[in-house]
Amino acid sequence: LRFPVPVCLNSPRDLTRRLLSTALPDVEIHYAGSATEATPQLERSQIVYGWGFSVDLLRRIWMQKMGAGVDDLAEEWPFGSKVVLTRTDGRLIGTRMVEYVIAAILDKTSRFDVARRLQSERRWEYFEIGSIQDLCIGVAGLGEIGSEIGRVLRDLGADVIGWRRSPVDCSSVRQVFVGFPELHSFVRECDVLILALPLTQETKNLFNAEVLKHCRRGIHLINVGRGAVLDESALLDGCETGRVGHATLDVFALAGYSSVLVAPQITITPHVCGPLIPERIIPHFLRNYAAFETGKQMQHVVDVSRQY
Amino acid sequence: LRFPVPVCLNSPRDLTRRLLSTALPDVEIHYAGSATEATPQLERSQIVYGWGFSVDLLRRIWMQKMGAGVDDLAEEWPFGSKVVLTRTDGRLIGTRMVEYVIAAILDKTSRFDVARRLQSERRWEYFEIGSIQDLCIGVAGLGEIGSEIGRVLRDLGADVIGWRRSPVDCSSVRQVFVGFPELHSFVRECDVLILALPLTQETKNLFNAEVLKHCRRGIHLINVGRGAVLDESALLDGCETGRVGHATLDVFALAGYSSVLVAPQITITPHVCGPLIPERIIPHFLRNYAAFETGKQMQHVVDVSRQY
Repeated sequence: LRFPVPVCLNSPRDLTRRLLSTALPDVEIHYAGSATEATPQLERSQIVYGWGFSVDLLRRIWMQKMGAGVDDLAEEWPFGSKVVLTRTDGRLIGTRMVEYVIAAILDKTSRFDVARRLQSERRWEYFEIGSIQDLCIGVAGLGEIGSEIGRVLRDLGADVIGWRRSPVDCSSVRQVFVGFPELHSFVRECDVLILALPLTQETKNLFNAEVLKHCRRGIHLINVGRGAVLDESALLDGCETGRVGHATLDVFALAGYSSVLVAPQITITPHVCGPLIPERIIPHFLRNYAAFETGKQMQHVVDVSRQY
Repeated sequence: LRFPVPVCLNSPRDLTRRLLSTALPDVEIHYAGSATEATPQLERSQIVYGWGFSVDLLRRIWMQKMGAGVDDLAEEWPFGSKVVLTRTDGRLIGTRMVEYVIAAILDKTSRFDVARRLQSERRWEYFEIGSIQDLCIGVAGLGEIGSEIGRVLRDLGADVIGWRRSPVDCSSVRQVFVGFPELHSFVRECDVLILALPLTQETKNLFNAEVLKHCRRGIHLINVGRGAVLDESALLDGCETGRVGHATLDVFALAGYSSVLVAPQITITPHVCGPLIPERIIPHFLRNYAAFETGKQMQHVVDVSRQY
């Protein structure tokens, strides 16, 4: 392998191109508007950087996923360790997700909707608002993104607890619940439950009717991770019975669109909360490129057996 | 003067009573449902704790205002230093105000209203949301409350600047603009402008048509301090011309109610963002009572010549 090696990149925003070409003037970089457009160029590339590629196109040396989630690739990764799969550092995306989560929580507690309804009816009435400081907020998934969410909510005065598959020291939450046996006790304490989990065989539909049954009545669910960790038909049932007070979803299993759209207890946004900002993610790629070039350990290498 | 001295308190929530009576078992405390109800009991009281009293009822020794603002009393305070006027520490109220301010900002940037409108129309469309990290946020008033607001917004990644009547070292903001000559330069930089000022002769109607003219087009105004610092007819004009993009008001000059209510660019809430929470404010009163009893310096003594 001779450096510089060709790189193939999709999602070619102008700024992304400029940052990469400036930093790697000697590298042959193919830019494509989409994974499909990139197909012919993949032949000459040893490194692939982007998202939305099907696994069979990735028989290269190194694939850097643009994004923190790799469920689309890891589930049927046929290359073992022959092709290195890396992902984007969640902390580079996390701060914007934190903002979305805070917005979703305060959207309910601050009751601006009540204010505006009274205004539109020309009525003047006193009402009280809630506070994040009175809430127990659970974060399911304490990776880079979940930990950051927990830390900021704790700084704002919430009582924050967390759930994770395996034990971890995490100072961003008051208590960590560990593994599937503790999931019910975890959700039982939450006024707000934030899903920040990777999608794996174990987390698919993890939040199903059985788990929702153990949630506090009127719980506010917020999903910023992967749609398929939440069983959407169980969610719709939960909205009907009042078990779920509100759900704010930035991700969803596509099958649920039509029914999800009509439930008044559900606010959906079109996967907007963790944008990939070139100024943040390109330097991360460049650090990995430098490591790759010098044979050092790259960062955020995916363990494809765990699927994240 | 012999201790314990009688205390008169209005706004007698159960918890307030319980906390006070438990802490001061030997003090004769009169509880009244309102300032008017308290009038007969005032005869026997040397200390008054509460709010909404007219100045002529306060010829006692010490008045502790329940609340951080004292404009209702300080403007015509006839007692000089003969009656000590103290107020509540703004930090005890500030954290809830910070939450309101964040909610108001994210209410605009996160665009849940767009999401819900699209849902109600059964439409699926991509849209982008904004971020607090892209905003320059100005805080007018860098007292206990304004500083806390600045600090938290800065932690969330906003570019925060401040304005104050007199120079101050304030690490919660990037830059402090000082005095009336710098007010125009200050507002010119703000995407969001938060008013956290005391009401004094100098600040009354300070944010008038002339100042609004120097604001960025589409500015988001948030008033959590005192309504009368903002000239409401100038605000309504600003909404009409587009100079003001939105205003979120938790306080207002009463005269403006009817017209303010009908402007779609204005969200008003009924003075809910700085509730006086007994568990927080009673200990503050008790510390002052202990100082009063032992002849030590009380905290948060109002300089009535400055009116705050």
